Amino acid sequence: MSLQNPTFIPGPTNLPEVLRKACDMPTIDHRSPLFGDILRPARAGVQQVLKSRDAEILIFPSTGTGGWETALTNTLAPGDTVLAARNGMFSQRWVDMCQRHGLTVEIVETPWGEGIPADRFEEILSADKAHKIKAVLATHNETATGVRSDISAVRRAMDAAAHPALLFVDGVSSIGSMDFRFDDWGVDIAVSGSQKGFMLPAGLAILGLSPKAMAAAETATLPRAFFDIRDMKRAYDNAAYPYTPLVGLLNGLNLSTKMLLDEGLDNVFARHRRIADGVRAAVAAWGLPLCAATPDLYSDTVSAVRTPEGVDATEIVRRAAADYGVAFGVGLGQLSGKAFRIGHLGSLTDVMMLSGLATLEMCMADLGLDIRPGSGVAAAQDVYRKSQTPQAREAAE
Amino acid sequence: MSLQNPTFIPGPTNLPEVLRKACDMPTIDHRSPLFGDILRPARAGVQQVLKSRDAEILIFPSTGTGGWETALTNTLAPGDTVLAARNGMFSQRWVDMCQRHGLTVEIVETPWGEGIPADRFEEILSADKAHKIKAVLATHNETATGVRSDISAVRRAMDAAAHPALLFVDGVSSIGSMDFRFDDWGVDIAVSGSQKGFMLPAGLAILGLSPKAMAAAETATLPRAFFDIRDMKRAYDNAAYPYTPLVGLLNGLNLSTKMLLDEGLDNVFARHRRIADGVRAAVAAWGLPLCAATPDLYSDTVSAVRTPEGVDATEIVRRAAADYGVAFGVGLGQLSGKAFRIGHLGSLTDVMMLSGLATLEMCMADLGLDIRPGSGVAAAQDVYRKSQTPQAREAAE
Amino acid sequence: MSLQNPTFIPGPTNLPEVLRKACDMPTIDHRSPLFGDILRPARAGVQQVLKSRDAEILIFPSTGTGGWETALTNTLAPGDTVLAARNGMFSQRWVDMCQRHGLTVEIVETPWGEGIPADRFEEILSADKAHKIKAVLATHNETATGVRSDISAVRRAMDAAAHPALLFVDGVSSIGSMDFRFDDWGVDIAVSGSQKGFMLPAGLAILGLSPKAMAAAETATLPRAFFDIRDMKRAYDNAAYPYTPLVGLLNGLNLSTKMLLDEGLDNVFARHRRIADGVRAAVAAWGLPLCAATPDLYSDTVSAVRTPEGVDATEIVRRAAADYGVAFGVGLGQLSGKAFRIGHLGSLTDVMMLSGLATLEMCMADLGLDIRPGSGVAAAQDVYRKSQTPQAREAAE
Amino acid sequence: MSLQNPTFIPGPTNLPEVLRKACDMPTIDHRSPLFGDILRPARAGVQQVLKSRDAEILIFPSTGTGGWETALTNTLAPGDTVLAARNGMFSQRWVDMCQRHGLTVEIVETPWGEGIPADRFEEILSADKAHKIKAVLATHNETATGVRSDISAVRRAMDAAAHPALLFVDGVSSIGSMDFRFDDWGVDIAVSGSQKGFMLPAGLAILGLSPKAMAAAETATLPRAFFDIRDMKRAYDNAAYPYTPLVGLLNGLNLSTKMLLDEGLDNVFARHRRIADGVRAAVAAWGLPLCAATPDLYSDTVSAVRTPEGVDATEIVRRAAADYGVAFGVGLGQLSGKAFRIGHLGSLTDVMMLSGLATLEMCMADLGLDIRPGSGVAAAQDVYRKSQTPQAREAAE
Repeated sequence: MSLQNPTFIPGPTNLPEVLRKACDMPTIDHRSPLFGDILRPARAGVQQVLKSRDAEILIFPSTGTGGWETALTNTLAPGDTVLAARNGMFSQRWVDMCQRHGLTVEIVETPWGEGIPADRFEEILSADKAHKIKAVLATHNETATGVRSDISAVRRAMDAAAHPALLFVDGVSSIGSMDFRFDDWGVDIAVSGSQKGFMLPAGLAILGLSPKAMAAAETATLPRAFFDIRDMKRAYDNAAYPYTPLVGLLNGLNLSTKMLLDEGLDNVFARHRRIADGVRAAVAAWGLPLCAATPDLYSDTVSAVRTPEGVDATEIVRRAAADYGVAFGVGLGQLSGKAFRIGHLGSLTDVMMLSGLATLEMCMADLGLDIRPGSGVAAAQDVYRKSQTPQAREAAE
Repeated sequence: MSLQNPTFIPGPTNLPEVLRKACDMPTIDHRSPLFGDILRPARAGVQQVLKSRDAEILIFPSTGTGGWETALTNTLAPGDTVLAARNGMFSQRWVDMCQRHGLTVEIVETPWGEGIPADRFEEILSADKAHKIKAVLATHNETATGVRSDISAVRRAMDAAAHPALLFVDGVSSIGSMDFRFDDWGVDIAVSGSQKGFMLPAGLAILGLSPKAMAAAETATLPRAFFDIRDMKRAYDNAAYPYTPLVGLLNGLNLSTKMLLDEGLDNVFARHRRIADGVRAAVAAWGLPLCAATPDLYSDTVSAVRTPEGVDATEIVRRAAADYGVAFGVGLGQLSGKAFRIGHLGSLTDVMMLSGLATLEMCMADLGLDIRPGSGVAAAQDVYRKSQTPQAREAAE
Repeated sequence: MSLQNPTFIPGPTNLPEVLRKACDMPTIDHRSPLFGDILRPARAGVQQVLKSRDAEILIFPSTGTGGWETALTNTLAPGDTVLAARNGMFSQRWVDMCQRHGLTVEIVETPWGEGIPADRFEEILSADKAHKIKAVLATHNETATGVRSDISAVRRAMDAAAHPALLFVDGVSSIGSMDFRFDDWGVDIAVSGSQKGFMLPAGLAILGLSPKAMAAAETATLPRAFFDIRDMKRAYDNAAYPYTPLVGLLNGLNLSTKMLLDEGLDNVFARHRRIADGVRAAVAAWGLPLCAATPDLYSDTVSAVRTPEGVDATEIVRRAAADYGVAFGVGLGQLSGKAFRIGHLGSLTDVMMLSGLATLEMCMADLGLDIRPGSGVAAAQDVYRKSQTPQAREAAE
Repeated sequence: MSLQNPTFIPGPTNLPEVLRKACDMPTIDHRSPLFGDILRPARAGVQQVLKSRDAEILIFPSTGTGGWETALTNTLAPGDTVLAARNGMFSQRWVDMCQRHGLTVEIVETPWGEGIPADRFEEILSADKAHKIKAVLATHNETATGVRSDISAVRRAMDAAAHPALLFVDGVSSIGSMDFRFDDWGVDIAVSGSQKGFMLPAGLAILGLSPKAMAAAETATLPRAFFDIRDMKRAYDNAAYPYTPLVGLLNGLNLSTKMLLDEGLDNVFARHRRIADGVRAAVAAWGLPLCAATPDLYSDTVSAVRTPEGVDATEIVRRAAADYGVAFGVGLGQLSGKAFRIGHLGSLTDVMMLSGLATLEMCMADLGLDIRPGSGVAAAQDVYRKSQTPQAREAAE
């Protein structure tokens, strides 16, 4: 493994120079006004990235998994029912966490590679006249399959059923990289982490909560302490934390949201789309299928690529690391050995991506796959050349 | 506030140059063998710092508070009884957390400034013939009062009562700075954080668990997921994490434990003792009392200093920050306004400490206290000159 | 020696956090427009720090010594005469360099501890009717003795003699810390380095040159290549360097001049004055004399302190490093063993300075000097308390 | 331009993470023993990289150009004759510097793209019965043309002529990346810089000097002061510098030589050869000629690629920077507009190199050259796959 090459795991992403420096801080007194000057704009920045006017932004020293637990334990009671689709490893883990906390999960089994079946949700919610379902759980981007689900469709399903359940969205690998509309989609809790679209090291669970979700905390009876949103909210009112905050990472988050907003969210999303398009062109040139069933489901942050029968996908990833010093993601769960994953989110350029594709070509050729080296690179180059911005073109004339 | 001056809050501590660099890492694939090469020695290093042969070392992306929650939720069941002394803000917070999780706390009210009353514990445990008490909670070092309790005495009390309860010790502000003997004291769970004796930024809850504590996880029924020690243990068996680990901080922990062990734990403890002795000499020269009731209770990591009637201790801390750019700790809870706290743990030299004492003298004189500037510094200088190591003296001859 | 303690050598100074980060850059193409965006404002910033409107700012990958060589070889011819006072180690070194380059030096021997005798200069220049003297060399701040000379007086002497010689000023340890007026004083070449008032690591020789000095390069016949100002100037016209530039340090210089100008040069100078006043108060409390003969000569960046007969001053410095991990400067040349030097320039706070003074007290007491520990600290504290800014006082009310 | 992409200029090179951290140091006292612990092994390391047992290693705060000036001014007298081939921009610059210092240069005009004509040197030296030629100047690797000359052949020519001239070798862009044999080749002065094979930022002129070269300093009459090797040597005897050293860069050099020696010089050279072979395969696939006339002249650190008639090579470089954020070198001097240069030295992996080749393909295609995107990448992939080490292959089985 080499520290010089970029990584192509689906998070943590490559770290921009300036964010590394922002995180690498000397100790400051986290009870001094200096800290408020970091926390306040960091929270405001996240709110804007979520495209929300009112969401309460709460940031825990934890990871996305801790963020899920925060969502559940602060809003629900033992025995409550939640509705979730199971279409990949991460939606599966969320279901599992619910069950550990004594919740009843109404699971909609969905083939891996498919998105959340909003129509099925609508049927179930419509049938739930007693409103036993307290929350709908939606994984925006299934990192295991490279599938992006349509959250607005989930909201429309809930509205069509006139169902009052809360809507929780796992945006860990989407927020900051793909369009996310907290307010428009009527999201009640959005969960993310620092190590994906925010381009930071892991360490922060980042949540946006609607007033309805915040209110639910008053009556929720699942036990919690570290993840209690009431303590966090109260501390924020004094620009403080209920325990020692991760000052460096928060400082990084402050700068990272500034960077995203300065670039313009639409430009950030277009950049991810362009890089992903290049990856998909390469995969097509190789003649390999994506796990994602249809183009409307394609994720712009991670591509899961199925390997031909008889080829161990994990071996491709292993060789990329061992022989060429480059990291990719293995297939998870039922995709183990059958797919590898290319992370293409966060701080990444077209040029870096080309080196990742070139690496995969070498590994696959080394393993005897019928892949012509250079073929995927050429396909991606074609995308990246055409997608130059008009300004760049103009400047180049 | 100045980034140039050292800080004297009781954690996070000043960061050694090499540890900052160890934490500031580029992204690596946390599923690659590189990660195991960080995690393994970091865990082994913590085990040695705890003076344990067998303790399972588990490290969560969280803080000491999360470490407490991990201890409780993995070993106890709703309605269980625990025994705890309440002699400061942090023991109070732990009691509060127990209650939130539905535990019954047998509280031994203890004056702030006193240590854990082991004799009282023995009485209570002896009386608990039914063994309703499942765990004894002990705060080794009360950061609010600068009081170090005698954990071996607590263990002796438990043994004298032949009581099978688990022994949980909050060593957040003691481990790595003052002697801690996991095995000798029969500790079942020790809780610490990265930002005190380990001289790192906050972000890691560091736990040591006895086989008995690990076994308790199999039957404990308090709900938990993020903090589930079984998941963590299982992941470690593959040199992995159940979610994204904080690689940089773990890399720092690896180096930090090496530094502590290379210096020699006894030397580390003696250094903290020497610096603390200088602080106490200064405080005595100022004619001010410590919160800690008797010398055997003096903490070597934090000193809480009571101010005279009519003097707002918080104002001293505020001025130190505003006028001189130096951070100290305010009094907490019932000591608010009545005491200020000097953190003297982690990465600190005699020379840095002298600048902290000089700062306090200026602030107190500015506020009209009857303190002669230079008096405390002189008293500390006397300690620091005498406590030079023989080697240093010899080299200097 | 400890990396945690501040240093008190008279340069390189302690490095501000932000400047370290500015210098620590990844490689950029120094022929790309990015480089111009660093070089341009860095040069403009230096010009403002010099208080000049028109000085050409040239920055060589070298040190102050290389800056002197640049000044001489670009303006003079073999056999030319220059006028210089010799009142310390650094003026001595400059004289020596002139002689190596075949220049004739008219030396005004001056006791170490005295400043440049402007009246003597006037006599000599007035007597030089043939204008054989081509340049006057003046060391603004003698780092060896802690003496600041009056450059405006030197200019007045030159004007009174109506002498056309060039005026070269060594401002290595003054520029950026004490008032320097390139235009008002009619300076032709000012020489500085990155590692003093600019608070950066060593590596840059920083020069300001008047149009007259630039013109002299056309006829100067001393050989030079690396230090040729014509090549440098020509390269700058293309925002480039005649060889590989030190991009990181230049980036640091860009930020460092911004910091100085944002703080306000007068405030920067007042800060140095305040800290130096505290040092001098401490030295007086110890009953020790400064090398500088009279208060008007006191340097605000370095104090050279004479030790009593029979006391080896170098031993004080050695012990400070060996026993307490703090660096001071030894006496140089004729002051070797007879004086030690306290650097108090660049990035330094009152609080840091107090720790330096406390260290010296311990060392001197250890060596048996009749110094009462705490006495100097107390004297400095008195200065630092009184010199709080009104704003700070107000904020503190 | 992007800070995320690797650079492909022929120096400064990409910086390894650990070397950046080694250079980024807090201030230490450069007169303390700490400094000797950096300087000593750094010098020893350079000596080993030069494959010399006795060469005096002197390191000046400067660049390679300053290193040349050091070589000339410390060994020669005004009017002395030196012999040099002019076969590129850097040999030209060295000739020019000689002339500025009043030396007479016997120039052997050599087509750009050719190496030093050792046979022509032998004729000239044999004819110089009076030994007017005092030094032979040889540019080991012409960075402008990507031509590596045969220094052992130059030495054989000198020996065949039994000529006592000194042999000076510019190894700026070869040392540390391609084989260099100071002792075997009878080199008298080797000149390098920190920013090429040593993988550090610019700032150090690194010289190796034979005893004969050191002795020449005693009689050389060219004026010098900053670059005087006698001062430097004398200072080293006290583990010090004649002026302020660049401590951070020296610390980096210490580590960088360790890295090179730990990897094994032969492995380092083979790595550069492999990466260069891939580049050359790509260039051949594009149907473009290298400037280097024949394969035995091919440089393993830089390739200069000629563009077809009518194609502005500079525009390719400009677009690579503007459109894709990647830096390459333009053609210099007579190659301006006719060639572009690919730097492939220092800290670089096969994978990074592939991204550079892919970028060039896009730029050339954008400009309408008849280049099939992916073709050069494929050719390089073929080289990189085949050149995997047996160990890597084995591990991969």
